[in-house]
Amino acid sequence: MEAAAERGFDYHYVVEEKVMHDFIVKSIIKAGAEKSQGESVARMLIYADSRGHFSHGINRLSLYIHDLQTNTCNRNGKPKILKQKGSTALIDGDNALGSVVGEFAIDLAISLAKEHGVGWVTANNSNHFGAAGRYGHLASDAGFIGFAMTNTSPLVFPTRSSQKALGTNPLACVAPAENGDHFALDMAISTVSLGKVEVANRKEKEEVPHGWGANSKGIEEQNPKIILDKGGLLPLGGIEERGGYKGSGLGMMVDILCGVMSGAHFGRNVRAWAQVGHDKADLGQCYIAVDPKCFADGFTNNLKQFLDQMRSLEPTDPKVPVRVPGDFSKSHGALIQHSGGLVYHKSQIEQLEKLAKEVDIPFFETKPFEKL
Amino acid sequence: MEAAAERGFDYHYVVEEKVMHDFIVKSIIKAGAEKSQGESVARMLIYADSRGHFSHGINRLSLYIHDLQTNTCNRNGKPKILKQKGSTALIDGDNALGSVVGEFAIDLAISLAKEHGVGWVTANNSNHFGAAGRYGHLASDAGFIGFAMTNTSPLVFPTRSSQKALGTNPLACVAPAENGDHFALDMAISTVSLGKVEVANRKEKEEVPHGWGANSKGIEEQNPKIILDKGGLLPLGGIEERGGYKGSGLGMMVDILCGVMSGAHFGRNVRAWAQVGHDKADLGQCYIAVDPKCFADGFTNNLKQFLDQMRSLEPTDPKVPVRVPGDFSKSHGALIQHSGGLVYHKSQIEQLEKLAKEVDIPFFETKPFEKL
Repeated sequence: MEAAAERGFDYHYVVEEKVMHDFIVKSIIKAGAEKSQGESVARMLIYADSRGHFSHGINRLSLYIHDLQTNTCNRNGKPKILKQKGSTALIDGDNALGSVVGEFAIDLAISLAKEHGVGWVTANNSNHFGAAGRYGHLASDAGFIGFAMTNTSPLVFPTRSSQKALGTNPLACVAPAENGDHFALDMAISTVSLGKVEVANRKEKEEVPHGWGANSKGIEEQNPKIILDKGGLLPLGGIEERGGYKGSGLGMMVDILCGVMSGAHFGRNVRAWAQVGHDKADLGQCYIAVDPKCFADGFTNNLKQFLDQMRSLEPTDPKVPVRVPGDFSKSHGALIQHSGGLVYHKSQIEQLEKLAKEVDIPFFETKPFEKL
Repeated sequence: MEAAAERGFDYHYVVEEKVMHDFIVKSIIKAGAEKSQGESVARMLIYADSRGHFSHGINRLSLYIHDLQTNTCNRNGKPKILKQKGSTALIDGDNALGSVVGEFAIDLAISLAKEHGVGWVTANNSNHFGAAGRYGHLASDAGFIGFAMTNTSPLVFPTRSSQKALGTNPLACVAPAENGDHFALDMAISTVSLGKVEVANRKEKEEVPHGWGANSKGIEEQNPKIILDKGGLLPLGGIEERGGYKGSGLGMMVDILCGVMSGAHFGRNVRAWAQVGHDKADLGQCYIAVDPKCFADGFTNNLKQFLDQMRSLEPTDPKVPVRVPGDFSKSHGALIQHSGGLVYHKSQIEQLEKLAKEVDIPFFETKPFEKL
């Protein structure tokens, strides 16, 4: 939910969106997939980077390429509708790339919502679909309230458990407001992502805040090294007395709506994170579109009022205004606009240069990033 | 989510469900409403007490009677459908008692789901509807996955805000599993309810855990007295670095799906808790039923497997097993079954005796509670 821009990240390079798009497409074709599959991956990764969600952007390209090279996912998978009734549909993801399944599923949910007011689609046999918020935005751009959820590899200790049994199971809800404004919630049900613990560890921090992680026995732990050494994440809220059982319950809800309802893997049956790139994922996902015009008149205006009411609350610290979900991404979007392209840290560009050599495609031009 | 039975509450009296039902109906009739309204309230309050959710049970009867006596809510309100298309409907709650609106709305959602796979109903002009989980259970008992949400009076500080602007905005999701088993999540988006802070204060505790509440400026505070003196609650997660912004975002999502979407009050426009019983509420609510048979085969079996997988996780403390949402209520239900009626603390029965005198109806018979 936070844009790197506001978190003081350093940028060194600017890459035009079109240039990055072509690079991604070429790399996916080299890994054996059709151009249309590469275009889907490019849209997914650029969505994330353009909003400052670097953990779901170009940093993940090598993961998808590896999935294709090893046939862990189907190179040219084509999702199919298995069942359809009224507002609902069940999809076989055909083990396609997650963004291919996601775009197919949210498009179907939108068209069902156009006809029936709601479209509720679950997919089994899917893969890592990037940032959940992207599918919500696709619905919102079409005038609908969009939801997307997925189950993921077990990294979270349910409350009281000494075994990891839930994924970070993200839940996104995006709704359109007047003048291009949005409500855009995109959250994991763990307090933080594993990436945040990794960053703290790389910076050699001795402690992360309470509620972030646990040791290998599921006991709360603040030392990032210990959390990363066979430990894991805690559900939103942290330990039980601070409400962690609610985050745990939300994580189970997402798994039921995704894994159980679609007939995919669920809970501990989802492949371990260490098996990513080896075992087939069979993730379960849920995509919902709802037409706000079927309810009270003036939704986009009312939502704009609600969002502005929240933003104008008196902050506890005058330098740190109240934000609504999606505002951080918007501010990163403004930076992109100003810079004339996606902005990256030099380490990201170095990684991509290495990747270009590995898959044997030409590298692209970058421009230096100029501070505002 | 916790049953008093597991939290070491003391019980002194047992009251047969039928006896309590008749007492509630009589008291509501005395307050000027028709019998059918009283029966709806009775079903709502007995649902909560039979599951150990005492904060939403008979303890609330005086609130509803006051609402009727003062015409704050419509004595014989009849909810109406304002709009209906496909899976969706918008309801005018007619300022009726919350349980009257809630039963009407979830019944409608269920019948829409029978036809279209999903029923998605929002209601404006509604009132306090008791425990959200109840409406989820009504859907689940009919074979559907049921959701219920409501906005409520602002008691929660959104992240970074020094002003309370969100309710505890409960979200319930209930799903049926094989052999009468359930997943039954019913959670406020605050870390805890105000009631938990009040209990700590009555017990003269000097501190509540981190993440529960804040002082009147929205700064985290552990002294329950200070929290209750114009302070308020923190969203699930607590302060920002511990994930409170996610609880805050969830609270906004519930308000958008309830208040904004239905055209009811939202955010800070919802009456303050202090104005309950004076100003009309105009709460917004959202009720959803989804037919799991429209998705992968064997839902109730798969859900049972998922729930049992969670329950059988190795606990961090062997004496404290892993539970899934709804298990606490189930264990309280077993106590009720064994005791032959609803079980109460003596202070609750004394309150009811006072109420009986005030509204001038005969009091009922109780039996002494016998420890298991």
